[in-house]
Amino acid sequence: METHFVLSGEPATMTEMIKPGTHILIDFWGASHLGDAMTVEQALRAAAHACDVNVLAVTVHHFGPGCGVTALALLAESHASIHTWPEVGYLAADVFTCGNSDPHLALPVLRAAFTPQRERITEHRRG
Amino acid sequence: METHFVLSGEPATMTEMIKPGTHILIDFWGASHLGDAMTVEQALRAAAHACDVNVLAVTVHHFGPGCGVTALALLAESHASIHTWPEVGYLAADVFTCGNSDPHLALPVLRAAFTPQRERITEHRRG
Repeated sequence: METHFVLSGEPATMTEMIKPGTHILIDFWGASHLGDAMTVEQALRAAAHACDVNVLAVTVHHFGPGCGVTALALLAESHASIHTWPEVGYLAADVFTCGNSDPHLALPVLRAAFTPQRERITEHRRG
Repeated sequence: METHFVLSGEPATMTEMIKPGTHILIDFWGASHLGDAMTVEQALRAAAHACDVNVLAVTVHHFGPGCGVTALALLAESHASIHTWPEVGYLAADVFTCGNSDPHLALPVLRAAFTPQRERITEHRRG
Protein backbone atom coordinates (compact mmCIF):
# COMPACT_ATOMS: atom_id res chain seq x y z
CA MET A 1 0.00 0.00 0.00
CA GLU A 2 1.40 3.39 -0.93
CA THR A 3 0.15 6.58 0.57
CA HIS A 4 0.04 9.64 -1.63
CA PHE A 5 -0.23 13.22 -0.54
CA VAL A 6 -1.70 15.98 -2.65
CA LEU A 7 -0.25 19.43 -2.24
CA SER A 8 -1.57 22.78 -3.25
CA GLY A 9 -0.81 26.32 -2.13
CA GLU A 10 2.41 27.89 -0.96
CA PRO A 11 5.54 26.03 0.13
CA ALA A 12 5.37 27.89 3.43
CA THR A 13 2.40 25.78 4.40
CA MET A 14 4.00 22.53 3.33
CA THR A 15 4.64 21.37 6.88
CA GLU A 16 0.98 21.53 7.65
CA MET A 17 0.03 19.74 4.48
CA ILE A 18 2.47 16.82 4.46
CA LYS A 19 1.57 14.31 7.12
CA PRO A 20 3.58 11.18 6.44
CA GLY A 21 2.76 9.82 9.83
CA THR A 22 3.55 9.21 13.45
CA HIS A 23 6.80 7.88 14.88
CA ILE A 24 6.95 6.64 18.45
CA LEU A 25 10.08 5.75 20.40
CA ILE A 26 9.62 3.15 23.11
CA ASP A 27 11.98 2.59 26.05
CA PHE A 28 11.36 -0.33 28.40
CA TRP A 29 13.30 -0.89 31.61
CA GLY A 30 13.12 -3.99 33.77
CA ALA A 31 11.94 -6.02 30.78
CA SER A 32 11.99 -9.81 30.27
CA HIS A 33 12.71 -12.24 27.42
CA LEU A 34 15.21 -9.82 25.89
CA GLY A 35 17.73 -12.48 24.88
CA ASP A 36 15.19 -14.61 23.02
CA ALA A 37 15.37 -13.87 19.30
CA MET A 38 12.14 -15.74 18.58
CA THR A 39 10.24 -13.69 21.15
CA VAL A 40 11.66 -10.48 19.69
CA GLU A 41 10.79 -11.38 16.11
CA GLN A 42 7.31 -12.59 17.02
CA ALA A 43 6.67 -9.46 19.08
CA LEU A 44 7.75 -7.26 16.19
CA ARG A 45 5.45 -9.06 13.75
CA ALA A 46 2.57 -9.03 16.24
CA ALA A 47 3.10 -5.33 16.91
CA ALA A 48 2.88 -4.61 13.18
CA HIS A 49 -0.23 -6.75 12.94
CA ALA A 50 -1.82 -4.81 15.81
CA CYS A 51 -1.18 -1.58 13.90
CA ASP A 52 -2.81 -3.09 10.79
CA VAL A 53 0.26 -2.39 8.67
CA ASN A 54 1.91 -4.51 6.02
CA VAL A 55 5.25 -6.18 6.73
CA LEU A 56 7.38 -6.37 3.57
CA ALA A 57 10.56 -7.73 5.17
CA VAL A 58 11.92 -8.64 8.59
CA THR A 59 15.61 -8.83 9.46
CA VAL A 60 16.77 -10.28 12.78
CA HIS A 61 20.23 -10.44 14.32
CA HIS A 62 21.08 -12.16 17.61
CA PHE A 63 24.35 -10.89 19.05
CA GLY A 64 25.04 -14.20 20.80
CA PRO A 65 24.13 -16.20 23.92
CA GLY A 66 23.24 -13.84 26.75
CA CYS A 67 23.43 -10.88 24.41
CA GLY A 68 20.82 -8.76 22.73
CA VAL A 69 18.71 -9.01 19.62
CA THR A 70 17.95 -6.51 16.89
CA ALA A 71 14.89 -6.96 14.70
CA LEU A 72 13.83 -4.60 11.93
CA ALA A 73 10.58 -4.67 9.99
CA LEU A 74 10.32 -2.87 6.67
CA LEU A 75 6.69 -1.84 6.42
CA ALA A 76 4.67 -0.58 3.50
CA GLU A 77 3.91 2.18 6.02
CA SER A 78 7.57 2.87 7.07
CA HIS A 79 9.34 0.73 9.72
CA ALA A 80 9.44 -0.80 13.16
CA SER A 81 12.43 -1.92 15.22
CA ILE A 82 13.28 -3.66 18.47
CA HIS A 83 16.74 -3.62 20.07
CA THR A 84 17.37 -5.43 23.35
CA TRP A 85 20.03 -5.35 26.06
CA PRO A 86 19.22 -8.36 28.25
CA GLU A 87 22.26 -7.71 30.43
CA VAL A 88 20.55 -4.59 31.80
CA GLY A 89 16.87 -5.43 31.15
CA TYR A 90 16.54 -2.59 28.65
CA LEU A 91 14.69 -2.52 25.31
CA ALA A 92 14.59 0.29 22.72
CA ALA A 93 11.94 0.07 20.03
CA ASP A 94 10.37 2.39 17.52
CA VAL A 95 7.29 2.21 15.32
CA PHE A 96 6.87 4.65 12.43
CA THR A 97 3.62 4.34 10.50
CA CYS A 98 2.63 6.68 7.71
CA GLY A 99 -0.88 7.51 6.67
CA ASN A 100 -3.65 6.93 9.15
CA SER A 101 -2.10 3.96 10.94
CA ASP A 102 -1.65 4.38 14.70
CA PRO A 103 1.70 3.10 16.03
CA HIS A 104 0.44 3.28 19.61
CA LEU A 105 -1.56 0.12 18.86
CA ALA A 106 1.76 -1.73 19.07
CA LEU A 107 2.20 -0.91 22.74
CA PRO A 108 -0.07 -3.52 24.35
CA VAL A 109 1.62 -6.23 22.27
CA LEU A 110 5.12 -5.11 23.27
CA ARG A 111 4.16 -4.76 26.94
CA ALA A 112 2.69 -8.26 26.95
CA ALA A 113 5.80 -9.74 25.32
CA PHE A 114 8.43 -8.02 27.48
CA THR A 115 6.58 -7.10 30.75
CA PRO A 116 8.54 -3.91 31.48
CA GLN A 117 8.63 -2.50 34.98
CA ARG A 118 9.00 1.02 33.61
CA GLU A 119 8.56 2.64 30.24
CA ARG A 120 8.85 5.87 28.31
CA ILE A 121 6.95 6.58 25.10
CA THR A 122 7.88 9.55 22.92
CA GLU A 123 5.77 10.60 19.95
CA HIS A 124 6.85 12.55 16.87
CA ARG A 125 4.66 13.73 14.07
CA ARG A 126 6.80 13.23 10.96
CA GLY A 127 6.51 15.39 7.88
CA MET B 1 9.12 19.52 16.81
CA GLU B 2 6.31 17.85 18.68
CA THR B 3 7.47 15.77 21.58
CA HIS B 4 5.65 14.53 24.58
CA PHE B 5 6.63 12.10 27.22
CA VAL B 6 4.36 9.62 28.89
CA LEU B 7 6.13 8.34 31.93
CA SER B 8 5.28 5.28 33.90
CA GLY B 9 7.40 4.89 37.00
CA GLU B 10 10.68 6.62 37.70
CA PRO B 11 13.26 5.81 35.01
CA ALA B 12 15.66 8.53 36.11
CA THR B 13 17.94 6.31 38.14
CA MET B 14 18.19 3.63 35.48
CA THR B 15 18.63 6.26 32.79
CA GLU B 16 21.84 7.27 34.48
CA MET B 17 23.07 3.70 34.59
CA ILE B 18 22.21 2.47 31.10
CA LYS B 19 23.54 4.38 28.10
CA PRO B 20 22.68 2.40 25.00
CA GLY B 21 23.14 5.37 22.76
CA THR B 22 21.81 8.28 20.76
CA HIS B 23 18.89 8.24 18.34
CA ILE B 24 18.36 11.13 15.94
CA LEU B 25 15.30 11.72 13.79
CA ILE B 26 15.91 13.62 10.56
CA ASP B 27 13.26 15.43 8.52
CA PHE B 28 14.22 16.97 5.18
CA TRP B 29 11.88 19.16 3.13
CA GLY B 30 12.52 20.35 -0.39
CA ALA B 31 14.87 17.42 -0.96
CA SER B 32 16.08 15.89 -4.24
CA HIS B 33 16.75 12.41 -5.64
CA LEU B 34 14.05 10.91 -3.45
CA GLY B 35 12.73 8.50 -6.07
CA ASP B 36 16.13 6.98 -6.81
CA ALA B 37 16.53 3.73 -4.88
CA MET B 38 20.25 3.53 -5.65
CA THR B 39 20.84 7.01 -4.25
CA VAL B 40 18.87 6.14 -1.14
CA GLU B 41 20.72 2.88 -0.52
CA GLN B 42 24.12 4.43 -1.19
CA ALA B 43 23.33 7.37 1.09
CA LEU B 44 22.28 5.00 3.86
CA ARG B 45 25.48 2.98 3.57
CA ALA B 46 27.62 6.12 3.35
CA ALA B 47 25.87 7.59 6.38
CA ALA B 48 26.66 4.45 8.37
CA HIS B 49 30.25 4.57 7.19
CA ALA B 50 30.53 8.21 8.30
CA CYS B 51 29.37 7.15 11.77
CA ASP B 52 32.01 4.39 11.81
CA VAL B 53 29.40 1.74 12.53
CA ASN B 54 29.07 -1.78 11.15
CA VAL B 55 26.32 -2.59 8.65
CA LEU B 56 25.09 -6.16 9.12
CA ALA B 57 22.19 -6.02 6.64
CA VAL B 58 20.46 -3.57 4.32
CA THR B 59 16.90 -3.93 3.05
CA VAL B 60 15.54 -1.65 0.33
CA HIS B 61 12.05 -1.34 -1.08
CA HIS B 62 11.07 0.95 -3.97
CA PHE B 63 7.34 1.60 -4.03
CA GLY B 64 7.32 2.10 -7.81
CA PRO B 65 8.10 4.66 -10.52
CA GLY B 66 7.62 8.17 -9.15
CA CYS B 67 7.04 6.80 -5.69
CA GLY B 68 9.18 6.63 -2.59
CA VAL B 69 11.89 4.36 -1.29
CA THR B 70 12.44 2.78 2.11
CA ALA B 71 15.89 1.58 3.10
CA LEU B 72 16.77 0.01 6.45
CA ALA B 73 20.22 -0.80 7.76
CA LEU B 74 20.63 -3.25 10.61
CA LEU B 75 23.75 -2.11 12.42
CA ALA B 76 25.89 -3.83 15.01
CA GLU B 77 25.22 -0.53 16.82
CA SER B 78 21.37 -0.48 16.30
CA HIS B 79 19.80 0.81 13.05
CA ALA B 80 19.42 3.51 10.44
CA SER B 81 16.54 4.18 8.06
CA ILE B 82 15.57 6.41 5.16
CA HIS B 83 12.00 6.84 3.90
CA THR B 84 11.25 9.15 0.98
CA TRP B 85 8.17 10.82 -0.47
CA PRO B 86 9.38 12.24 -3.80
CA GLU B 87 5.90 13.52 -4.66
CA VAL B 88 6.24 16.12 -1.91
CA GLY B 89 10.05 16.42 -1.60
CA TYR B 90 10.03 15.02 1.93
CA LEU B 91 12.44 12.54 3.54
CA ALA B 92 12.24 10.98 7.01
CA ALA B 93 15.36 9.27 8.32
CA ASP B 94 16.66 8.09 11.64
CA VAL B 95 20.04 6.95 12.90
CA PHE B 96 20.32 5.10 16.22
CA THR B 97 23.85 4.23 17.31
CA CYS B 98 24.65 2.63 20.62
CA GLY B 99 27.88 2.96 22.51
CA ASN B 100 30.11 5.90 21.73
CA SER B 101 29.19 6.26 18.06
CA ASP B 102 27.83 9.66 17.05
CA PRO B 103 24.82 9.52 14.68
CA HIS B 104 25.18 13.22 13.88
CA LEU B 105 28.14 12.27 11.69
CA ALA B 106 25.57 10.96 9.20
CA LEU B 107 24.12 14.40 8.59
CA PRO B 108 26.68 15.83 6.14
CA VAL B 109 26.36 12.68 4.02
CA LEU B 110 22.58 12.86 3.94
CA ARG B 111 22.56 16.59 3.21
CA ALA B 112 24.97 16.08 0.31
CA ALA B 113 22.88 13.24 -1.13
CA PHE B 114 19.45 14.91 -0.90
CA THR B 115 20.18 18.70 -0.76
CA PRO B 116 17.22 19.66 1.47
CA GLN B 117 15.97 23.23 1.53
CA ARG B 118 14.93 22.84 5.12
CA GLU B 119 15.56 20.30 7.85
CA ARG B 120 14.72 19.34 11.41
CA ILE B 121 16.94 17.16 13.58
CA THR B 122 15.65 15.73 16.84
CA GLU B 123 17.94 13.93 19.26
CA HIS B 124 17.02 11.33 21.88
CA ARG B 125 19.27 9.75 24.44
CA ARG B 126 18.11 6.14 24.59
CA GLY B 127 18.38 4.01 27.68
